[in-house]
Amino acid sequence: MLPGFTQYMDNALTASHDDRLKTAMAYSLDAGGKRLRPLLVLATAVVLGADPASAYPAASAIEFIHTYSLIHDDLPAMDNAQLRRGKLTSHVQFDEPTAILAGDALLTDAFSCAVAGDLPAAVRAENVRILAQAAGSSGMVAGQMMDMEGSHKELTATELATLHRHKTGALLRAAVALGANVGGASPADRMHLDNFASAFGLGFQIKDDIEDVTETAAELGKSNNQDAANAKTTYVSLYGLTGAKEQLHQQYERAQAELNQTSVDVTVLAAIADYLA
Amino acid sequence: MLPGFTQYMDNALTASHDDRLKTAMAYSLDAGGKRLRPLLVLATAVVLGADPASAYPAASAIEFIHTYSLIHDDLPAMDNAQLRRGKLTSHVQFDEPTAILAGDALLTDAFSCAVAGDLPAAVRAENVRILAQAAGSSGMVAGQMMDMEGSHKELTATELATLHRHKTGALLRAAVALGANVGGASPADRMHLDNFASAFGLGFQIKDDIEDVTETAAELGKSNNQDAANAKTTYVSLYGLTGAKEQLHQQYERAQAELNQTSVDVTVLAAIADYLA
Repeated sequence: MLPGFTQYMDNALTASHDDRLKTAMAYSLDAGGKRLRPLLVLATAVVLGADPASAYPAASAIEFIHTYSLIHDDLPAMDNAQLRRGKLTSHVQFDEPTAILAGDALLTDAFSCAVAGDLPAAVRAENVRILAQAAGSSGMVAGQMMDMEGSHKELTATELATLHRHKTGALLRAAVALGANVGGASPADRMHLDNFASAFGLGFQIKDDIEDVTETAAELGKSNNQDAANAKTTYVSLYGLTGAKEQLHQQYERAQAELNQTSVDVTVLAAIADYLA
Repeated sequence: MLPGFTQYMDNALTASHDDRLKTAMAYSLDAGGKRLRPLLVLATAVVLGADPASAYPAASAIEFIHTYSLIHDDLPAMDNAQLRRGKLTSHVQFDEPTAILAGDALLTDAFSCAVAGDLPAAVRAENVRILAQAAGSSGMVAGQMMDMEGSHKELTATELATLHRHKTGALLRAAVALGANVGGASPADRMHLDNFASAFGLGFQIKDDIEDVTETAAELGKSNNQDAANAKTTYVSLYGLTGAKEQLHQQYERAQAELNQTSVDVTVLAAIADYLA
């Protein structure tokens, strides 16, 4: 199902009226990410019986937002990263103004994507609400702010969980919520899918913390040991490697248990959750 | 009509989950701007017979977007401005990461505003489309990119008009289009209102170029003679002060003429257009 989606998403870029801006947007969007968030949108819609193409606009929107967040997080004033997914970061490949603006454009255009398509206006408006709530000042951006404020100081376990619930968890939950909205899930299924997404999101972050210390830069496609270099609190720094692996396994079990409580055939989503195994 | 609006807009900020982020968002949003874009949204809705409160969500959304664009334009990597509306710019008052994130949050939350309220979902979805198109890679952000690329080189008259149509014109047109959408304007009225907004937007930019050379920093609430300092092409550098004033007057006449061709009582919008006189 992803080739059709990728083509749809790339077409959504063609609107830009400035060549350099469009080049920079495409550079980061096509930098070889896992497309995890679109995959969650599409898979959730599909297990609920929807045509996957009906979820392409929402899936494109969330990948635009994820991509913008990486560009801005990598900026010199933020994490000052040189490498992302094995390629130079946007401000290194282009320059800082271009990276800021490419991020701004991807974030804005995400909402053009979210309202596009043939779904009823109420479904598209709800998709916009889900995305904006998850990505904005009470979601992902708040998480990034907590992350900047938390650098170079020790966070408690509660503070760390709050940070990740906002910084990475909110958008992963939004991906599943978008799919549930497009697929017209029942209230009970929405609740279990949301609980699944919360567990998956937390597990995803714990896995990221583990890989930062266990994998090489080549394996990661970005610099490794960055958390220690930036003196960031992680699940590994708080619980040790073994403790972090145990917590990862707990979230994996919780994610699968929630899926099994829905009323639909969740095979596709269960396969995605195996990423945590 | 504006006190009720200001209260509505300030309430839209209370959602943030991070105190520093929220403080920075409020600092720039409440920095004493003219509220021109919300005023255009509300005035257009009102001349079409709509309840102004029905346009508060869209009016808040566009002011959030305008405010984010100022914060990001002022960043060290962009215009590197120290002063805005007589106050320190966001990255000077706070720091650069906070300014980047406050801008990102305002831009994202704008779309939470745009889909809020009791209007039919089709109207709210169309408001999102109008805003995202005007502010994104084929609108305002493209204009800002052209502006960065055009610094330190001479632009032709056509290039300058293209730049301003994107950088400032698109959002002013969006303000009127939002009001027309909320007010349910006829296709003919939408066309004349859009032409009015184009003329007003161009006149607004010419006036800005004129004031940069004729007013003091205290009068402007920001540094003056910035265009010359940044070697930017302006209507004054292309046509001289007298020529720029003539072009401003032409756009003023055009704006009023378009208003007079609508089917409604345009008194309130005509009064706003007098800003150009």
